[in-house]
Amino acid sequence: MSRFFSHKYDKLTPYVPGEQPRDRSYIKLNTNESPFPPSPRAQARAAEAAKTLQLYCDPECTALVEKIAEMKGLKPDQVLLGNGSDETLYLSFLAYCDRDTPAIFPDITYGFYKVFAESLNLPYVTVPLEADFSIDHKAYLNCGKTVFIANPNAPTGQLLTLAQIREIADSNPGNAVIIDEAYIDFGGESAVALLDTCENLLVTQTFSKSRSLAGGRLGMIFGSQAMINDLKTIKYSINPYNVNTVTQAAGLGALEDEDYTRANCEIIKENRSFTTRQLRSLGFAVADSYANFVLAAHPAVPGGELYAGLKSRGILVRYFNTDRLRPYVRITIGTKQEMESLLGAVKEILEEAQ
Amino acid sequence: MSRFFSHKYDKLTPYVPGEQPRDRSYIKLNTNESPFPPSPRAQARAAEAAKTLQLYCDPECTALVEKIAEMKGLKPDQVLLGNGSDETLYLSFLAYCDRDTPAIFPDITYGFYKVFAESLNLPYVTVPLEADFSIDHKAYLNCGKTVFIANPNAPTGQLLTLAQIREIADSNPGNAVIIDEAYIDFGGESAVALLDTCENLLVTQTFSKSRSLAGGRLGMIFGSQAMINDLKTIKYSINPYNVNTVTQAAGLGALEDEDYTRANCEIIKENRSFTTRQLRSLGFAVADSYANFVLAAHPAVPGGELYAGLKSRGILVRYFNTDRLRPYVRITIGTKQEMESLLGAVKEILEEAQ
Repeated sequence: MSRFFSHKYDKLTPYVPGEQPRDRSYIKLNTNESPFPPSPRAQARAAEAAKTLQLYCDPECTALVEKIAEMKGLKPDQVLLGNGSDETLYLSFLAYCDRDTPAIFPDITYGFYKVFAESLNLPYVTVPLEADFSIDHKAYLNCGKTVFIANPNAPTGQLLTLAQIREIADSNPGNAVIIDEAYIDFGGESAVALLDTCENLLVTQTFSKSRSLAGGRLGMIFGSQAMINDLKTIKYSINPYNVNTVTQAAGLGALEDEDYTRANCEIIKENRSFTTRQLRSLGFAVADSYANFVLAAHPAVPGGELYAGLKSRGILVRYFNTDRLRPYVRITIGTKQEMESLLGAVKEILEEAQ
Repeated sequence: MSRFFSHKYDKLTPYVPGEQPRDRSYIKLNTNESPFPPSPRAQARAAEAAKTLQLYCDPECTALVEKIAEMKGLKPDQVLLGNGSDETLYLSFLAYCDRDTPAIFPDITYGFYKVFAESLNLPYVTVPLEADFSIDHKAYLNCGKTVFIANPNAPTGQLLTLAQIREIADSNPGNAVIIDEAYIDFGGESAVALLDTCENLLVTQTFSKSRSLAGGRLGMIFGSQAMINDLKTIKYSINPYNVNTVTQAAGLGALEDEDYTRANCEIIKENRSFTTRQLRSLGFAVADSYANFVLAAHPAVPGGELYAGLKSRGILVRYFNTDRLRPYVRITIGTKQEMESLLGAVKEILEEAQ
């Protein structure tokens, strides 16, 4: 830290992204990426777009916004795109939290909510997950705070129902409620269906997971025209060209190939069932997951040891060194072959631990 | 605006990007883009990178940072990349300004400095440019504020010397001094040469102009390891994956083809001399510009009329409807043919005005 750095950051601890090893020999099951390449349409459109990069990108992302609006049954001015849903979430923290309006979110959830609040010096409250890692939706009723809920939640994979989300939104008529649906394509119903009737609701989704574009950085957020306008006011005040030309093109290509996305999601769901069953038969506690990962704990091997044992065998999973998550590892669902390699390595580790 | 929007933005006026018409028939001389496509290496690397977008991008941008450091004679930990230099500037405002540390910058300069300060509720002071639109560097000596200076300045194209920049940095030992060199490849000496001896200096540059990658969003900022660490702390708290995979690849490709960049810059400089001479011979006041644009005013036709007349003839230039800039238009330097079209249209407009 330099001596010029503002003291407002004295206590800031940045987010730590999952390892991105440059040694390609790892089976990467640590950052919830898709094991499938982007659709051929997405690749082709990206390559074509690279030829005109001398021009600024369209700050309105017009073509992509129109396509998304049509698919979601929304008006184009109910859609805003971001540099990943990390950015749409950041814009939401900026827009709907301040000294008098704290954020509220689960104690165990996407780690960035806390980092956003802290980096922006915003007040926030966390609500402990239940013992089974489900979200107690009653804790958010009439809370008078800006609600951030990942649904399915990460890294637990558990789901709130639309009825529960509606209850949260309806009981907090003076506050924004942001539902982070990064993993919704792998299970559960989207809260986009509630936008017609919940004027305080925002729903954010991403192209990073089901659409194989994590490296392209493309997120989207949906809401009323008025709320999307709020977010646009901030976007145009900090980063008007937030989604680059190639990413807009790749996103459009991905949406032109929704069959590919749907087929990939089906494979992930099958592999998730397979992996869950196999892990349970090995003695793991694994809650049903609605995302492209499972959270698993074994009574004989703590999460840190499992993580290290897998890494030494060329398999990366995610370990969170925090109180309630220490027994667990979060395992991204990959191809069948990758999951079989994982299960083979897990068996070796369990045998060694006996 | 929704009723949930934080009141801290009640007075915020977002930045207005230059028009990006979707009708391709315009000659676009309004946003200082390059008239040349990205280098073939950049295009090829971008297309190749699109095949692996299912994986997150390298948040450290390792390969590109190493290449840039080598070219600039810096250590890799003196380099940080951003989603355009808009983002490196935003990070600098976040890091080095707060309630007790105002920003200071010229009254006429890149419009985003003011918008950043206002969107972040940061105090700031502006210093009027001299009558000839030069920067009075003495106004920044011993000012005790965080200094932001575009060099060459926009939209004036005028330059401070390295000696003047050093004086500003040395006389403000307790403050960060940020030099925005978006246009440095078209004239002037880079303040990167001062980094060895000025520990409070940051220098930001972009791939948008000379390297034909405006639509890719790639900026870079250089400074001491300590200051770059400050900026990294914030980057990892708001947007770790800020530079996507394709853009990292395109940037690397562009740097592998520096002959192409240099040749293009030479053409722009020649066309700038040509355009300046021609405009002067038509009665325009045009200061010598060190950037890829010129700022020009004609005694007989105010800026707004010139802008409208050119637009109706299929040529877009930039008009700023603010007190001191109303007589002017800012004209991006394009190809020789584009400048000849511009000059032809200008002659018509002047004849009509007689």
